[in-house]
Amino acid sequence: MIPPDHPRYKSLVVREHLAGCARNGIVSWEGLIAHGRGEAFDYLLGEKTSASARNAERTAAALFRTARHPVISVNGNTAALAAREIAGLQEASGALVEVNLFHRTEQRIKDIEVLLTNAGADVFSGPAERLLPLSHDRAWCRREGMYAADVVLVPLEDGDRCDALVAMGKKVIAVDLNPLSRTARAATLTIVDEVTRALPVIAEACSRLTDEECQALLSDIDNTRFLKEAYDEMITRLNHALD
Amino acid sequence: MIPPDHPRYKSLVVREHLAGCARNGIVSWEGLIAHGRGEAFDYLLGEKTSASARNAERTAAALFRTARHPVISVNGNTAALAAREIAGLQEASGALVEVNLFHRTEQRIKDIEVLLTNAGADVFSGPAERLLPLSHDRAWCRREGMYAADVVLVPLEDGDRCDALVAMGKKVIAVDLNPLSRTARAATLTIVDEVTRALPVIAEACSRLTDEECQALLSDIDNTRFLKEAYDEMITRLNHALD
Repeated sequence: MIPPDHPRYKSLVVREHLAGCARNGIVSWEGLIAHGRGEAFDYLLGEKTSASARNAERTAAALFRTARHPVISVNGNTAALAAREIAGLQEASGALVEVNLFHRTEQRIKDIEVLLTNAGADVFSGPAERLLPLSHDRAWCRREGMYAADVVLVPLEDGDRCDALVAMGKKVIAVDLNPLSRTARAATLTIVDEVTRALPVIAEACSRLTDEECQALLSDIDNTRFLKEAYDEMITRLNHALD
Repeated sequence: MIPPDHPRYKSLVVREHLAGCARNGIVSWEGLIAHGRGEAFDYLLGEKTSASARNAERTAAALFRTARHPVISVNGNTAALAAREIAGLQEASGALVEVNLFHRTEQRIKDIEVLLTNAGADVFSGPAERLLPLSHDRAWCRREGMYAADVVLVPLEDGDRCDALVAMGKKVIAVDLNPLSRTARAATLTIVDEVTRALPVIAEACSRLTDEECQALLSDIDNTRFLKEAYDEMITRLNHALD
C-alpha cells in the first residue's frame, strides 16, 4: 500500500500500524494524537539518538542496575510501538513489566498483556488496587509492582502520574520526545528520544556497564542539563531549516 | 469529564472532539496523528498568532480579494475543527468551498459536506473528476471548482497536493503549523498558525483591507521570510524553556 520509496516510508508504516492498533483497542484515540506530537518533536531532533540522549540512556541503565525493585510501566502506545524492545529490556535489567493505562478497561489491560507476552515479556499481572495519589484511573497499580518500586521507567507518560511517582520518593525515568512537557520536567531522568531507539540502548548498557561506570553516571544526574541539550538540538535544526 | 481547571483544558476538549469525529468517520486515523503534530508545533509557537502570522493572514486576504476564482479546499480535520470559521471566511471572501480528501469515500465526502452546510457554508458539490496530476485520491476535484481556481486555500494539506496545485500555476495559500513541512515550503504563501485562529483573521481582513493595502501586501510575497520568522518564534521559546 505505502510505496517503499516514499520519503516518509518508515513514518507512514508506523502510523498505519498504530491506526490498526487503535482499531483493535490497544491504542486509544488520544494515543494517536500523542503519537503525532512525538513525531513532530522527533522531526526536530533529526529522528536520531543524540549524544545527549545516549548519555541519558546509559544513566537509565545505571539506575536499573542499582535498583532494588525496578518496574517498567507500559501503556497502549508503548506496547503497540515497542513490545519486543520492552521484552529485551526486561531480559537485560530483570525489571518487572506492568501495564498501566490512562483509558483503563479490563479488556484493554488484558489485550496489552497478551501483546507483551507474545513479544516475549513476562508480565506482572493480577488484581490491581487504587494506590497512587491520582484522581483518575492511572491510580490503579499492583501493591507488589509499581507501588513497591524504587525505580520506575515510564515511556510516553502523562505529567500527573510522573509527578505522583516522584512525590512517592521513586526515581522516575521518562522517555519523552517533548523536552518541554510536564513529564520531562518532573522526572528524575528524562530520555528525549524515540522509544524504539531508546530501549535497546538502555538494555545494551544494562549488560555492559561496569559497577564503576554505574557509580560515575549516578553521581550527578542533572535532568535540566539533558533537557537543555535537547532544546539545543532542536534549535540547531530550526536554525538550519532553510539551508 | 475533563475538569475545567486542568492546565491543558482547551487542548483536551479539542482532542476529545476530534476523537469523536474519528469515531463517526469525519476524521481519519491519520488525521488524529496529524493533529498531534500540529499541537506540538503550536506549543512551540506559544499557542498564539504571531505578528508574522497575522501579516501572512492579511496577505492571504489580499490574495482572496484580488482573485478571479478563489476556492477553499476542506478536508476532514479542517471540517471537524473549523466548520464555522470556513463558513465565515466564505461569507467574507465569496470563495467556493470544496471538499477534497486524502482518504476518500463517497460517504465521507457527503458527511463532511453536511457538517459544513450545517455550519452555514454553501458547499460546491456534485460529480468530481480525476483532474489533478496526482496518483492518489486527492486527484479528484470538480472542473468548475478547484481545477478552475486561480487562488486556493489549503488548510492542513499534504505536500504532494500543494506541489501539484502550484505546478498548475495556481496561487496556493497553506495553513500549516509545521514551518518545515513540504507543504509549508511549496506554497505560494504559508500561514504558520492554528486554523481556528487563522481563518477569522483572514475573514476580517477580507472585509477591511483597502485596495491600496491589498496592492502593497501583494507587491512582495516572500514565503521564505514567513517561514524564517516562524522558526525564530520557536527558537525563542526553546531558548527560554528553562526560565
